[in-house]
Formats: sequence, structure tokens, C-alpha cells
Amino acid sequence: MSEKLNQLKAILGEVSDVGHAAAVLGWDQQVNIPPAGSEARGQQLGTLGKIAQEKFIADEVGGLLEDLKKEFDGADPASDEAALIRVASRNYAKAKRVPPSFVVEQALVASKSFEAWVEARSKSDFSIFQPHLEKVLELVHKYISFHPKAEHPYDTLLDDFEPGMKTADVKAIFDELRPQQVELIKAIAASKPVKDDFLYKKFNEKKVWDFSETIVAKFGYDFNRGRQDKAPHPFQTSFSVNDVRITNRFESDNPLATLFSAMHESGHAMYEQGINPDYERTPLEGGASLAIHESQSRMWENLVGRSLPFWEYFYPQLKKTFPSQLGNVNLKSFYKGINKVEPSLIRVNADEATYNLHIMLRLELEIAMVEGKVKIKDLPEIWNAKMKEYLGIVPPNNAKGVLQDIHWSGGAIGYFSTYALGNLVSAQLWERINKDIQGLDDQIRKGNFSELLGWLRQNIHQHGQKFEPQTLMQNVTGSKITPAPYVRYLKKKYSEIYGL
Amino acid sequence: MSEKLNQLKAILGEVSDVGHAAAVLGWDQQVNIPPAGSEARGQQLGTLGKIAQEKFIADEVGGLLEDLKKEFDGADPASDEAALIRVASRNYAKAKRVPPSFVVEQALVASKSFEAWVEARSKSDFSIFQPHLEKVLELVHKYISFHPKAEHPYDTLLDDFEPGMKTADVKAIFDELRPQQVELIKAIAASKPVKDDFLYKKFNEKKVWDFSETIVAKFGYDFNRGRQDKAPHPFQTSFSVNDVRITNRFESDNPLATLFSAMHESGHAMYEQGINPDYERTPLEGGASLAIHESQSRMWENLVGRSLPFWEYFYPQLKKTFPSQLGNVNLKSFYKGINKVEPSLIRVNADEATYNLHIMLRLELEIAMVEGKVKIKDLPEIWNAKMKEYLGIVPPNNAKGVLQDIHWSGGAIGYFSTYALGNLVSAQLWERINKDIQGLDDQIRKGNFSELLGWLRQNIHQHGQKFEPQTLMQNVTGSKITPAPYVRYLKKKYSEIYGL
Repeated sequence: MSEKLNQLKAILGEVSDVGHAAAVLGWDQQVNIPPAGSEARGQQLGTLGKIAQEKFIADEVGGLLEDLKKEFDGADPASDEAALIRVASRNYAKAKRVPPSFVVEQALVASKSFEAWVEARSKSDFSIFQPHLEKVLELVHKYISFHPKAEHPYDTLLDDFEPGMKTADVKAIFDELRPQQVELIKAIAASKPVKDDFLYKKFNEKKVWDFSETIVAKFGYDFNRGRQDKAPHPFQTSFSVNDVRITNRFESDNPLATLFSAMHESGHAMYEQGINPDYERTPLEGGASLAIHESQSRMWENLVGRSLPFWEYFYPQLKKTFPSQLGNVNLKSFYKGINKVEPSLIRVNADEATYNLHIMLRLELEIAMVEGKVKIKDLPEIWNAKMKEYLGIVPPNNAKGVLQDIHWSGGAIGYFSTYALGNLVSAQLWERINKDIQGLDDQIRKGNFSELLGWLRQNIHQHGQKFEPQTLMQNVTGSKITPAPYVRYLKKKYSEIYGL
Repeated sequence: MSEKLNQLKAILGEVSDVGHAAAVLGWDQQVNIPPAGSEARGQQLGTLGKIAQEKFIADEVGGLLEDLKKEFDGADPASDEAALIRVASRNYAKAKRVPPSFVVEQALVASKSFEAWVEARSKSDFSIFQPHLEKVLELVHKYISFHPKAEHPYDTLLDDFEPGMKTADVKAIFDELRPQQVELIKAIAASKPVKDDFLYKKFNEKKVWDFSETIVAKFGYDFNRGRQDKAPHPFQTSFSVNDVRITNRFESDNPLATLFSAMHESGHAMYEQGINPDYERTPLEGGASLAIHESQSRMWENLVGRSLPFWEYFYPQLKKTFPSQLGNVNLKSFYKGINKVEPSLIRVNADEATYNLHIMLRLELEIAMVEGKVKIKDLPEIWNAKMKEYLGIVPPNNAKGVLQDIHWSGGAIGYFSTYALGNLVSAQLWERINKDIQGLDDQIRKGNFSELLGWLRQNIHQHGQKFEPQTLMQNVTGSKITPAPYVRYLKKKYSEIYGL
């Protein structure tokens, strides 16, 4: 192999190690840290971030990348080497444009803004958060200014989460999707409601937890290379391809949510466990984008985990585990219950039919903020108006409205649309998968997920960050991200459940 | 404050952060890591170690230290600033002498040697370990050669664990101690044996674990700034003064050992929790030396935790927790049982009266190795001969003899004597404490440990690494480390127990 490529990989390997070390510290902070330990932890994470950044944007890296671009000029663009140089160059150029002093400033602002958001949400008082969000937005504009002028200023933000994706693409997708989802929800609202009261009985925490691990182990999440721990919020994190962890929680007022959270996070985790080990410690490790990542979690959570075939296999076990809660509930009723559609205020609790509308609302507000077409102080009012328009309900207070999500407080503007895109991608892949795998439903009905996981490994997981998301989708499904499969999926599923 | 001192502290702060990050990764590796995760973790730890070393031995640090030594030339040597510059300069000079390539080579040799040791011990076959230990010793000689010639080559090794301590000092201490401990053991062997069979009954793991936490919380180990987790071996580790963790284990064939391990590790942990927070992220954080650290763990484990007043307070609770195991055992019998003296093969299981002899044996072998007076292949034979001489027993195999300890496999030669010195220091401090605190036994009898912990905080803990161990002991007890208090302690305690 090229001597210079080896040199580059040695440096990027260390950058990756430091990043993984920071991930361990972050995981420990969520899972284990004693109450007084967080302040020093923040300092340690700051230092690791600074070291990784310094190492990565060193002129030596830039020089190696320049030389390597020439050296590999005629190489197959689909080769791992070409991909590594391409992805590293893209990330290097982006990182290099941002002054380290800005990174420090942004971290400080985010930290204060996060604290203000916590207080604002707890008091349901937007005015506490407002000046901080204004400052966050100011820095977002500054961040955009460091980068080359794009078609739309929001493109710069989106590209960090969804490489190659444009604001106009997302808008076009959402514009096609919105009326169809709104129409579907109206039709459901006019039908006979579904019962789901049995989901909110008292369930034993340990039994639910163990059941969640039974499911994800059956999916193919490898506990030899991972573990599930308790944390305030479910998440997935990777320390290497051989140490990919998930967290989960148990909420007594929504006990079975633990099962779906485990399926969701295991979807992320199986992606990470399936990446080509040769990409370890290079910029090709990790998932292609947030939307592709989310497609994996949503597929296992929803397309598999809220499907009838899945529960044909698992419901007898679940019923046996919780006879007093579910003894009188037949499979069909259970299936309908876990798929109940109901416009609701909180995004993270939204069902499959309404979820994307929460995202569209946020995307519109973010774009308006970036375009300067909305004043921060007017956000609550606009939020509530859009909730009324899309979902027919209005939050009783800002805590359940504009203050519900953490993202803006940390400066993560440009992130939200990837959640909805992930839903679309999951259905788009699902149509392809069902063409490639004969009788997938029957396999799932027998608790056999290996062919499905094998397909995902082969077509998605192994490639890591080698392909940009739209290229990957084009390669695998013959089309870029499109909303049609998701609409077909929703219509078919809910027409059956609600007899539309 | 001096601008240059601020610059130095900024760099050393980052070095400390990276070290603490590595500590988190190491803790996680012992406590949580899934089976397949260790290889990547080794790589990550290697990278963090390299980064910390590079940052610390940077010429910038050397330049700042030179300038600061001049700037603070007339400063009070007992000031924090002078101490910081002194300790940082000492560590810098040491680190700078060792080429980074040697550090890498040593890590590789240690890693292979550790694997060979694991196999050798499991097969009880010294020949598997022998060539690796020879290589380890070769590197030890090389390491010594990087440093200025000392009175004795072993001094260089010892100084890394026990700053300022000389081989001749330790030898003199041990020479005074050895005959008195041997004599005591002989006297005990000639007396009526103590019964301890009740300690080896079946005890409920969770109840023992909870009891261990009750004890250490009562001592003053602050769970708001720490936690106890399960690990293969008990240890203590610090991520900051506000996050000091301990680990423990439960062995069904020695169930109450969990209580004493918790007391031991909490002794280390209370030391770390008590260090002046101003020393955080500077070279003054952490304990003064391994012996001083061990004195704290041994004090809480033995001088407190195996004392009669302690169990006068805790035994009724213990008996109530385990009525079927201890219902027929009175306090005096229990006290004698946990203090039973019996020459045994394994150092970590040795009682207070025999423990130091295990250490002396190891020190003699280490010195002989460093002096080149013993061939590695002859170690098992010499080991067994010394066991016979000091303890009157001979290991039936090398797994229970020369292969029992991990230390040599990792290149940690020069470490062992600090265990015995820790015992001596604990008793030397104890005599001072009992002069300073009136009625300490009565306080302990009432489960009141706050004055004791306050004394340790005031006289030992808060100072961190500010003083070298011998200076600290001179300041606090009026004398350098001496064996007399420990001998007095042992004789008094065991004369009563065994009616000598």
C-alpha cells in the first residue's frame, strides 16, 4: 500500500481512537456517573474534542490528502482507497474552514443554552430560552458564513448530517408527502377508534427488560459485541465495530415502550456491528448519514416490530409472560393497539402516521429562522399555529410545544429532517427487500430474521460511510430517496387496521 | 498568578484530562466491556497514553518549567506553586529520559508477556513465562540505563512508585521487621488454633454486597462522588476528585471477603476524595505514593475493619442480616475468626501477621534479578525455598508459587515493597492518631468515624502529591517510615487473640 496512505491512516486512526474514547466517556456520563462527577467529565470531553480536532486539521493531514488525491487520481472511484481519500478530504475541508476559536465559542454557548432550555422547559417559559436561541442562531449564521455559498444557506447545515442532500430536495419530498399524510390522518380520525388501554396496565420492569433483550438477540444484535444498559434516554453508541452498545429506559406509565425502544436502538446497533471491519479507525467507519441510520432503527422498530407477522411469532410469548395484563387481549387487538393513530403533542411519542408531520413543522421553522424570515420571539405562536394546521391540536403550554426538543439548545439545526427521511428510506428499502427475499413475512412469522439482516448487512451496513446517502439509495433501490413507498406502506397498513 | 504558570497548568490540565479519560476506559474494560470489545480498547488506551506522553514531554513544557524554576526561586518551598513546579519538573525529567520508542516497545513486550503469564499460570508451567520474563528484565535494565546512576540500580525502579525512597532504606526496614514477624508467627503456630469455619458458609450475595456499602458509606466514602461496581478484581480508580469509584467481587467460597475488599478500596477512595480540589488537573492530584495510598486502604480494612470496637458496632447488624450463619457465633469468636493467622501460599489471601513476609520474598527476588544474581529459570526453586524458610510451607505447584502475581508480567518491578510499607505506615499513623484523638476506640464502637476521617483528610489526604512520602511521614508522625509501630500493633493484637 501507498506509504502516504499509511501515514494518513495512522493519524486518522488516532483521531478515531480519541473519538471513541470520548464516546465511552459520554456513555458513562449517561449510564453510570455519580451525581457530582459531571463537571469534570465535561472538561475531559472538551479536551478530547480539542485534541481530535487539532490532530485532524493539522497541515500534515492536508498535505497528505493533496498528495494522495494526485496519487490515486486514476484509481477506481468505488475502491476503498478512493472512498477513504474522498471522505477524508470532504471532512477535512469542512473542519478546516471553521476556526478552533469558533468551536470553543459554540461549545460554550451550547452549554449555557442547554441549561437555559432545561429551565425554560421545566417552567414552560419560552422567554428564558429566547435570548440563548437567538445567540445560537447567530452562531449558526456565522458557521454558514465560513463555508462556500450554497444554493440555500440551510444546505450547509443539512450537509453535515446528510452529505450531498439539498434543502430543495427535502422540501420537494416533504411537499409531496404532507398532503397525503394529512389526508390519511383525517380518514383515520373519522373511523372507529382503536383500543389500547391494556398497554398502560402495570407491567413488571425486569420481565419487560428481559423480553426486550430476547427480541433484539433474536433480531441478530450481538451481545458478544454489545450490551444494553439503563439511561435517562434510549440511545446507541459505538466504541468499535466489536463494542456497540444500546441504552433503554422503563417508564411505568408506558411500560411496553421499552420493547420498541430496544428494537429501535438495536436497529442502529446492528448497522454499526455490520460495518466492514476494514473501515475501523478510518473515516469510512460509522453510518452513511443520519437518515440511513434512522432507516435501520425505524425498520426494526416499525416495519418489523409493529407488524402482524412479528407479533404472530412473539405475542404468544409476551402473553405467557404477562398473563394477567394480556390474557384477555387477542393478537389482532394487541396489534391494533400498538398501532393506534392519534395526533399528539410530543414528537417522540408520535405514531407512524403522524410522526413526519412533527418533523415538517420543525424543518419549516428552521428554514425560516435561517432565512431570517421569523423572529425567535414569535416561534411559540407559529409553532402552535402549525400544530393546529397539521395535526388539529394546539399545545396547552410551551413545554409541550416549542420547548419539547433538546436539539436547538445544542445548536443542532439541520438535524430534524433526517428523522422523517429515515422513515421514508426504511419503506423504500423494505419494498426492495420484499422483492429480493421471497416470503419474508413467513420468515418473520417464524421468528427468523437472518435473511433480512443478511440483506441489510450486504446492501447497507458493510459499506459504512463509503457512499453518500443518495448514491447508496440509487445503487440499492434504483432511485434516490422518494416518499412514495412510505405513503404506500402507511395507506396499506392503516387501511387494514382502521377499515378505511 | 504568573502567566507562565497558567500556560503550564493549561497543558498539564489536558495531560490530566487524557489520563482520566484513559482511567474511564480502563474501568469500563474491567466492569462492562463485552467479550469482543477488548482488542479495540487496547488500541484506544495505547493512543491516549501516547498523546498524554507527547503532550507532557513537549519542549514547551520543559521551557516553561525552566522559566518557572527561576521565577519561583525565592518562593516558599511549601507553597502550592513551588510544589507544583517541583513535582512537575521531577516527572518531566523522568519522562524525558525515556525514548517514546522504548515506551512502545515496553507496552508490546508487556502485552505479550501478560498473555504468556495467563497461560503459564493456568497450566502451572513456568517455562511458558520464562522467556517473556527474561525479556521484561532486559527492558528493565534498559530502563534503568536511561536514568542517572543511583546508589543501587533498583533505586530507579522504586523511585517511580515511592518517590525519594531508597533500596537501602527498604532493606533496613525489612531486616528489622522480618525476625520479629517470623518469631510472632512461630508463637502463634504453637498456640491453640482459632476457629473460622462459620466464615465459609453460604451467604446471600446481594445481602453481603449491600452490607459492604452500608459499611463504607458509614466510613465516609461519598457515594455522591463515587460508586461500587462488580469486577473480576477489586480496585479503586479516579476520574476526578468528584468521581472516585471502587470495584468489588463476590466469591462464594469466601463470601465475607467482599466486606473487607470494600473497606480496603474505600480507604483508597476516601484518600482520593479528600485531596485538595485546587490540585485537580495538576501533577499534585492523586496520592503521595503507593505506600501512603496503601496505608489508607489497610488502615480502614485492618486497623479499623478487623478491630474489636468496629465489630462491637457492626456485628449485631451482621448477625441480624445472617442469622442462620452467625446466630450461634458470638462477637469474640467472630472477631477471632476474621483474624485467624495461618501461613498460606497466596499473597492476596494472607492475614496481617504473615502478609509482609510474602512481600519480603518478592523484594529479595526482584533485587537479585536486577543485580543479575539470579537466573530467571531458577526463580521457582528459589521462591519455594524462601517460602519454606519464611512461612514453613512449600507451594505444590508454580501457579500457587512464583506464577501467582500479575505484576512482573507487566514489567512492574519495584512495586511490591509498597504493599508492606503501606502496612507499616498504617500502624505508624495509627499511633499518632490515637495520641491526637481521645477515645477513638469508643467512637468506633459507636459507629462514628468522622473524627478519624477528618484527621486523615487534614494530615494526609488534602496534600495529594505535594510532599514526598518520607517528608509527609516526618511531618505527621515525627519520623520517617519505621517498622516499630506495626510490630507493636501485631504483638498486642495477636497476643490477646492467641493468648501468647
